[in-house]
Amino acid sequence: MKIAILGAGAWGTALGLVLDKNGHEITLWSHNAEGLREIQSAGRNVRYLPEVPLPSTWLFEPSLGVAIRSAGAVVMALPSKAFRYVAEQLGALSCPIVSVTKGIEYETHRTMTEVLRHCVPNARISALSGPTFALEVALGFPCAIVAASREQSAAEETQALFHRTIFRVYTSTDVPGVELGGALKNVIAIAAGVGDGLGFGDSSKAALVTRALAEMRRLGVACGALPDTFAGLSGLGDLTVTCFSALSRNRRFGERLGRGEKLQDLLARPKELTEGYPTARSAYQLARRIGAETPIIDEVYAMLYKGKNIVDSLRDLTARSSKPE
Amino acid sequence: MKIAILGAGAWGTALGLVLDKNGHEITLWSHNAEGLREIQSAGRNVRYLPEVPLPSTWLFEPSLGVAIRSAGAVVMALPSKAFRYVAEQLGALSCPIVSVTKGIEYETHRTMTEVLRHCVPNARISALSGPTFALEVALGFPCAIVAASREQSAAEETQALFHRTIFRVYTSTDVPGVELGGALKNVIAIAAGVGDGLGFGDSSKAALVTRALAEMRRLGVACGALPDTFAGLSGLGDLTVTCFSALSRNRRFGERLGRGEKLQDLLARPKELTEGYPTARSAYQLARRIGAETPIIDEVYAMLYKGKNIVDSLRDLTARSSKPE
Repeated sequence: MKIAILGAGAWGTALGLVLDKNGHEITLWSHNAEGLREIQSAGRNVRYLPEVPLPSTWLFEPSLGVAIRSAGAVVMALPSKAFRYVAEQLGALSCPIVSVTKGIEYETHRTMTEVLRHCVPNARISALSGPTFALEVALGFPCAIVAASREQSAAEETQALFHRTIFRVYTSTDVPGVELGGALKNVIAIAAGVGDGLGFGDSSKAALVTRALAEMRRLGVACGALPDTFAGLSGLGDLTVTCFSALSRNRRFGERLGRGEKLQDLLARPKELTEGYPTARSAYQLARRIGAETPIIDEVYAMLYKGKNIVDSLRDLTARSSKPE
Repeated sequence: MKIAILGAGAWGTALGLVLDKNGHEITLWSHNAEGLREIQSAGRNVRYLPEVPLPSTWLFEPSLGVAIRSAGAVVMALPSKAFRYVAEQLGALSCPIVSVTKGIEYETHRTMTEVLRHCVPNARISALSGPTFALEVALGFPCAIVAASREQSAAEETQALFHRTIFRVYTSTDVPGVELGGALKNVIAIAAGVGDGLGFGDSSKAALVTRALAEMRRLGVACGALPDTFAGLSGLGDLTVTCFSALSRNRRFGERLGRGEKLQDLLARPKELTEGYPTARSAYQLARRIGAETPIIDEVYAMLYKGKNIVDSLRDLTARSSKPE
């Protein structure tokens, strides 16, 4: 099948390699035509995934209209802030569209598949989320992930596209649970990274992760998610690896803050920017609207958007830990 | 209060430092009189916790009878294989006894507080367990832990002994849940370490940890534990940090196996031995007796006791992952 991957970051590229191995024909689209040419001429994603060569059969298409024209399926691998802009241009599609973006839209508080349902009403929409690093997937390391859609048949369709022995795809119909798990854990990972940067140690991080999963579940359930989803790959699995792994960009972002780097300096380097940064604000807004108690998200929001001192934030986080979770 | 700590390993020493800071008078006992003298003369636990000096007020007592004679509380910080032998000598005590040992007794399948209740029927018995590394606790890093006893009052008594601002003690009355979480995660950590040694990556470890928590909960609930306990500090918290942290001895034990070191060689070096090794066998027996499905524990048991090839074991683990958990 011809599959258009929208977004030429590390994750879109890595998933293209999975789909390619499953026999699909890959077209990679990006709004950045120059970046696409660079990838094409180098035969690898020099900027975001330089470790892995790309098959010579891939097409690199700077026109979105051309890229999706004959696609049998579309993969949305964009930053959340660009997601709606691109989704709005897919309005007429009725093929499967798979969101692999982990975020919550600012102000609307919509997850990415909610944005898709709004913009592309006739498409068969699913989310693919779980504890997976692009580099590990691209290198063929074993991993497991969840395809979620309101209809089991659409989840299975996505499963069939991506599933391989070493890239195990499970299915779920709890779309908000799977998407919120993937989005919220990036916010928590920033807090975990700040603790790393301040030298708080792994024992305290384990306590943070334990409380965080309860917080994510509380907020998720208030949004209509099923509690058990947060004990699965897209909740517990993704949260723990993002908070503990050296490969996690959100954790590293927090670690740099914890070590004393200035937020402005990190924000000025787009490559350092991670989804946890915008999601902290969206999740904070969402929790206020819904009335859910989210002490960890609140502190990350205060650190990133209200100029709160990170040491004060971590201390307040500890002080608010008045009951076990 | 005078508190006798039985066992002069890293964890007993670190908890002695916590109790000391709370104003208690520490007596450290070990069956190894020479080891005790070494600690006393060096002013630090040279063998197991050399990084941290010990207060000069500590007593080092090679006679168990003398150590417990006027103790207001006793902390059992022994390897699980020595636990019953020492517990049998405490028969007449009626003071609080806190088990900080994570294990399951071979053949009886009793947790450590069950052994204590059997041997010391008049004592007020509790377990203290959670995601804490001895070195981090000894250095005063922040962390959180759970005191569990059948009676809330006994759990609170233990909480009062240990609780500090940076050593937060929560309480639970789900003793089997707290103890099995602490014991079983050591077995899982060996599997996680084998994956590390084989270079399987963090994504696959996240999938393993997710499945493992479901497996631990399943076995625990079959033994009378409450399912929610496994989402807390002594379950999820302890499991994740033990599987991901560089400080985890059980994970390192598995990593060495994964890198090709021979089991016999590791077993010949007592300092490398970890609780996960005996617990793998006890947990395997326990699961068979109860009829619980425990694919990860089964594979670790087969690797450690049946000479199964670790690569085959990891592959079988992946193959058995036929449904999401």
